[in-house]
Amino acid sequence: MRFAMKTIAYASHSPDSPLVPYSFERRELRDNDVAMEVLYCGVCHSDMHMSHNDWGMTVYPVVPGHEIIGRVTAVGSKVTRYKTGDAVAVGCMVDSCMECDQCHHGEEQLCREGMTMTYSSLDRIDHTVTQGGYSKYLVVREEFVLRVPDGLDLSRAAPLLCAGITTYSPLRTWDVGPGSRVGVIGMGGLGHMAIKLAVGLGAEVTVLSRSEGKRADAMELGADKFLISSDASAMDKAQSSFDLIIDTVPVKHDLNPYTPLLDIDGTLVIVGQVGPVAEVNTAPLLFGRRRIAASPIGGIRETQELLDFCARKNILPECEIIRMDEINTAFERMERSDVHYRFVIDMATLETEKK
Amino acid sequence: MRFAMKTIAYASHSPDSPLVPYSFERRELRDNDVAMEVLYCGVCHSDMHMSHNDWGMTVYPVVPGHEIIGRVTAVGSKVTRYKTGDAVAVGCMVDSCMECDQCHHGEEQLCREGMTMTYSSLDRIDHTVTQGGYSKYLVVREEFVLRVPDGLDLSRAAPLLCAGITTYSPLRTWDVGPGSRVGVIGMGGLGHMAIKLAVGLGAEVTVLSRSEGKRADAMELGADKFLISSDASAMDKAQSSFDLIIDTVPVKHDLNPYTPLLDIDGTLVIVGQVGPVAEVNTAPLLFGRRRIAASPIGGIRETQELLDFCARKNILPECEIIRMDEINTAFERMERSDVHYRFVIDMATLETEKK
Repeated sequence: MRFAMKTIAYASHSPDSPLVPYSFERRELRDNDVAMEVLYCGVCHSDMHMSHNDWGMTVYPVVPGHEIIGRVTAVGSKVTRYKTGDAVAVGCMVDSCMECDQCHHGEEQLCREGMTMTYSSLDRIDHTVTQGGYSKYLVVREEFVLRVPDGLDLSRAAPLLCAGITTYSPLRTWDVGPGSRVGVIGMGGLGHMAIKLAVGLGAEVTVLSRSEGKRADAMELGADKFLISSDASAMDKAQSSFDLIIDTVPVKHDLNPYTPLLDIDGTLVIVGQVGPVAEVNTAPLLFGRRRIAASPIGGIRETQELLDFCARKNILPECEIIRMDEINTAFERMERSDVHYRFVIDMATLETEKK
Repeated sequence: MRFAMKTIAYASHSPDSPLVPYSFERRELRDNDVAMEVLYCGVCHSDMHMSHNDWGMTVYPVVPGHEIIGRVTAVGSKVTRYKTGDAVAVGCMVDSCMECDQCHHGEEQLCREGMTMTYSSLDRIDHTVTQGGYSKYLVVREEFVLRVPDGLDLSRAAPLLCAGITTYSPLRTWDVGPGSRVGVIGMGGLGHMAIKLAVGLGAEVTVLSRSEGKRADAMELGADKFLISSDASAMDKAQSSFDLIIDTVPVKHDLNPYTPLLDIDGTLVIVGQVGPVAEVNTAPLLFGRRRIAASPIGGIRETQELLDFCARKNILPECEIIRMDEINTAFERMERSDVHYRFVIDMATLETEKK
């Protein structure tokens, strides 16, 4: 089937330039490809970092976007799971080797050859650069397309594909369920999902924050408790009281106030920060056999499980819907944490003039 | 039973003074107490640190020693497990609450009230300061006395009680067995036990060292492989190749060269250092869901399991037997890592003149 098509999009052309309208060709449909029209695309911190080449791995021009909700417009000849009109989703990866131990047990995000990222990565077959969801159309191999279950609000589901799975995956890896005591540090895009998902899994959830300011919001998101990390007495009382702490702080920070809060054999898992953390004192780890870990997104199977779980439990991210041409302002607002809790681009606005 | 008795010993009286002969009274036997004559006592780095009050928790005068092999000389009226003449052992702890969740599942080292240490701790009943194994006699409650199985060389078993259990416990916690790939960093008292015990459990063991110098020793101790951490190419090839790395380095050091060596979901467990480690980069943790942990000694049940395991497998520490009055020289030699691999005091020398 001949399908290669022009798609309009927003792209960044250099570290210092804003995102601007851009058009390029999506590949012809391969036998196992699904083509979709992008309906909504979440705005992740990574999109901003990649646009600015903060991690030194950006290939320009880059079309960001890896929290993608779409509708199938065409399928390759051997596609069996999807048909035109289906509501689908794509997250941070669009391919992997599919042959290593990790791929075989459904953890394609940990593929031994490295996953193919949704944008700024090289396609494994034609070696073109992948481009993300800030675009009208997208073509992805069937195995990396998720099904959006009935009942999940399409306009709010997008952030599940990165913020959602990044917090859901460690909750599942560390077996969170009824009776689990979970702490959440940071209450942005990832943190607010960690709260909702941990509550959904039946855990007792405590939000840790530097000040009183976020208590009402934390409670509204479903948290059971609120612990102010600058309150020495409260922190002392909370020692050894968490099985798992999800640390969503995106910048370099000090873990030492938090490690003693873990119960014996408890784990603090970093999901927000890439880079060095401040010096960690081993004493609380040593005397409580405590652990520090970090965790990326989940695999395709787990991401589907998350979507189904959220539909069943009616769990949705808190979104602020924006127009495509508001993306540069959105980046600026994200840099000062001025978002509750995730921007989602209504991709229908890609083709319309700003009012 | 009246039993309080004078015991001769070696003690330190201040941070800057050497260990000198000392005598004090051991308590009268309680119903559940076992009295023993100390035959051998291992010399642990902690003994030196505690003698110097390096951790700010020493109560002077302090009689160090928590790797203790002895022979029962008397038992309290309700003691059922031991009788006069039995070969026994005592490690780093002599009591705990015995009522919390941790004590109930045999992890007294993680007792919620804190374990009572073998020396420089307060006895839970009479609140006197506990004194360790650099002494002729010792009185310990039955539940914290280990049995030395037949066939275990008494003169070499002592280091199992701290160096042994400190490395055996994480091997068991992280389920090391046939097929496991274990790395060992550092080849001192703890490191050499980690090698022998991991090999004994059936793992493939690699020693990581900064230079070629220790290769022959590592192989002699049973290691399968030797990896030079300053060899960038070898380190690169070894990425993702360990399930568990036991890090026995006792001083502040950089973990970043080692974390990428862990396989996905692998753990680097610190057993040697108390205090801050250099800044850890989260990237290798994040992209491999790798973990950093620390681990203390094991519980009584696990320590007994270790002694039985070593007797069955004929695993023994490498010891240099010294006289009691050589202890200060031994501390000096330990500070410059001049020991292969553990000093053990022949406690019979406590009563004899130096030749």
